[in-house]
Amino acid sequence: MYDFLSSGAFVKTFTLEPYKKGALSDLTFAVKDNIDIANYKTSYGSPAWKEKHDAPTYNALCVDQLLESGATCLGKTVSDEFTYSLDGENYFFGTPINPIAPNRIPGGSSSGSASAVACGLVDFSIGTDSAGSIRVPASLCGVYGMRPTMHRISEAGVLPFVPSTSTVGVLASDLGILCNAMETLICSEKISSERIKNIYLLEDAFDISDAEVVKALKCKIDTLSSIDNFNITSIRLSDILKEPMTLESLNVEALRPLQTFEFLNTVGSWINNTSPDLSPFFAMKYETVRSFDRRNVNESLMLCEKVFNRIKSFIQKGDLILFPTVPTIAPLRGAFEHMETALDFYDRTMAITSFSGVGRLPEITIPITKVDDSPVGLSIVSGFYQDEFLISAVKKLFK
Amino acid sequence: MYDFLSSGAFVKTFTLEPYKKGALSDLTFAVKDNIDIANYKTSYGSPAWKEKHDAPTYNALCVDQLLESGATCLGKTVSDEFTYSLDGENYFFGTPINPIAPNRIPGGSSSGSASAVACGLVDFSIGTDSAGSIRVPASLCGVYGMRPTMHRISEAGVLPFVPSTSTVGVLASDLGILCNAMETLICSEKISSERIKNIYLLEDAFDISDAEVVKALKCKIDTLSSIDNFNITSIRLSDILKEPMTLESLNVEALRPLQTFEFLNTVGSWINNTSPDLSPFFAMKYETVRSFDRRNVNESLMLCEKVFNRIKSFIQKGDLILFPTVPTIAPLRGAFEHMETALDFYDRTMAITSFSGVGRLPEITIPITKVDDSPVGLSIVSGFYQDEFLISAVKKLFK
Repeated sequence: MYDFLSSGAFVKTFTLEPYKKGALSDLTFAVKDNIDIANYKTSYGSPAWKEKHDAPTYNALCVDQLLESGATCLGKTVSDEFTYSLDGENYFFGTPINPIAPNRIPGGSSSGSASAVACGLVDFSIGTDSAGSIRVPASLCGVYGMRPTMHRISEAGVLPFVPSTSTVGVLASDLGILCNAMETLICSEKISSERIKNIYLLEDAFDISDAEVVKALKCKIDTLSSIDNFNITSIRLSDILKEPMTLESLNVEALRPLQTFEFLNTVGSWINNTSPDLSPFFAMKYETVRSFDRRNVNESLMLCEKVFNRIKSFIQKGDLILFPTVPTIAPLRGAFEHMETALDFYDRTMAITSFSGVGRLPEITIPITKVDDSPVGLSIVSGFYQDEFLISAVKKLFK
Repeated sequence: MYDFLSSGAFVKTFTLEPYKKGALSDLTFAVKDNIDIANYKTSYGSPAWKEKHDAPTYNALCVDQLLESGATCLGKTVSDEFTYSLDGENYFFGTPINPIAPNRIPGGSSSGSASAVACGLVDFSIGTDSAGSIRVPASLCGVYGMRPTMHRISEAGVLPFVPSTSTVGVLASDLGILCNAMETLICSEKISSERIKNIYLLEDAFDISDAEVVKALKCKIDTLSSIDNFNITSIRLSDILKEPMTLESLNVEALRPLQTFEFLNTVGSWINNTSPDLSPFFAMKYETVRSFDRRNVNESLMLCEKVFNRIKSFIQKGDLILFPTVPTIAPLRGAFEHMETALDFYDRTMAITSFSGVGRLPEITIPITKVDDSPVGLSIVSGFYQDEFLISAVKKLFK
């Protein structure tokens, strides 16, 4: 229905043949344009960045891993400007199509990577995710997406964004392909034989989601529970942390400051030094963060560390936590011109994505249902470094 | 005896006042010159890099953490060229003094950071460590040094080197100060109350160390054992991994390829694009790695992951592993002009440092003894994310 051009998903198409046959033979993939491909300039979603930087000599290590495993690379995909967005409307590179809901945004920042797989143009794509940049577009476009445990995939050749929360991950329209590509990238030694023990619903995330999204998801979860006889129980963030805290404060007090501090290091200095051409919306957002008070970093860093430790202690081997990936269906294209709409979407979405972000956890989003013909994703999270268990559990639950 | 100038440890001195009073009040520190300080160009140990990059607008996040905790920054210290060395002889910026053995090298790449604390010019310094760049100079200069569990300290504002093994860490001539600074940077929630259970000697590392180094260290370890009644047992890498492997192959087959692949992404592309002025020794080393076969990355990445997992399964809470930090005392200045001497030092040293590098483990080196009036360091390692336990255990053992 949409091709490489009409999808708007690609900034560049080409064919990189695999180095040899392997576990991913006969599969094609696309690469988000903040991940290096040798001899092609990396844009980071910004024409100014692209212009002022040379083309890399080497592929990002994760790209070499995939080519060595037999997959064929078909091009580079649109990213939000500096990957600093969840909407997928790039002022310079355009808005990749959300093929299931074409009047709606694809989500970002791995917008082109989500669109490319949703349009069936590649078997899988790679992207990056700090506060939802894989999970959100996967959910809004109705495909599978996974971010691994922090730093389980090499970030060499991936432009630095938020070093303490960014991960490389995969999007695919088929669960088996998603899992194969992820297993290759995380260098899984063997398939996990861990049994599913406890399944928890993170009620705080349901509380801040739209009623229709909650209803559609809970209906699917009930089916799961009745078919497979899993005992699914509700839990709250405060049960996990052993002290009162909302997801909203987790975002506002922990994730967002950490992201802002680190983004100013990785991209902010460059913007201040080169005064590049920025989109109006990004320029406005940047103005609000550039003077963030760096004489006060320890409180949020300590909160991140505390929450990470509490979550790590709580989630045992065999445990899964479920919640809506995004609290809404995909907003309409252009809806974020109304600042109130944008703020509401960002505040609620990042409240949810901050759970795995601060927890450094692996998360898979599953395109499990629809509301108003628009996709709704369910997220499944396991413990720190339990990526292999998460993959095997999701395969079992959603086969 | 040596001042800021005569030590050769600093590339720039200045005073950054603390933001407020805190746990590190009244302490001074220095910063390795691959870590950003606002408004000063970061050299990365290379005048060409310094010339072609703008000064950052922001301090690295770790520097802001220290200033907020009450410490005063006194300057930036010499780093080996692109931090890609363990010797501390920078062709452009000179060789910082090793004050206890002035005719010997300080070790690198955090050479100036080690020299500055060994000379008593600052209370502590920060550096980075991928394959020993904190541990080696700390050991050779007779000071304490710690690298934390991978990624426990933010790398925002630290130049990317080898994303999968680089860590920020601390050097100090006083154990208490080392621990305080580390606890601040890793945002320790509380002091560990974990009891020391097993102490293992990694015999493979003793096997490849000089006889006098082994003798001096084992003598100290015997004292430890008899005073404190700890049960200290020998162990081999093959016991930990449950299959035969030497430290030499861990380095050659796992750590070194990973480092090379990633270094080509982070620095190699830039060198290829800009043809900067390189030192003769670095240029020669770079020639040997620039054409590394990237169509064959998965084998070494999978080995890294396997070894990481096996070590993680083996080291339980309460366990410590001890070994010589470096297999020799500090080589004489200029000794590495003989390629054979350089290769022998690098091969044996990196065989040892690869244990924590691939294991992503926290490690503290203790200046415990001397051979021929030159310092010899003992390394103590604990499990993944057991940094707090390591700190408390080392305080207990070496008070």
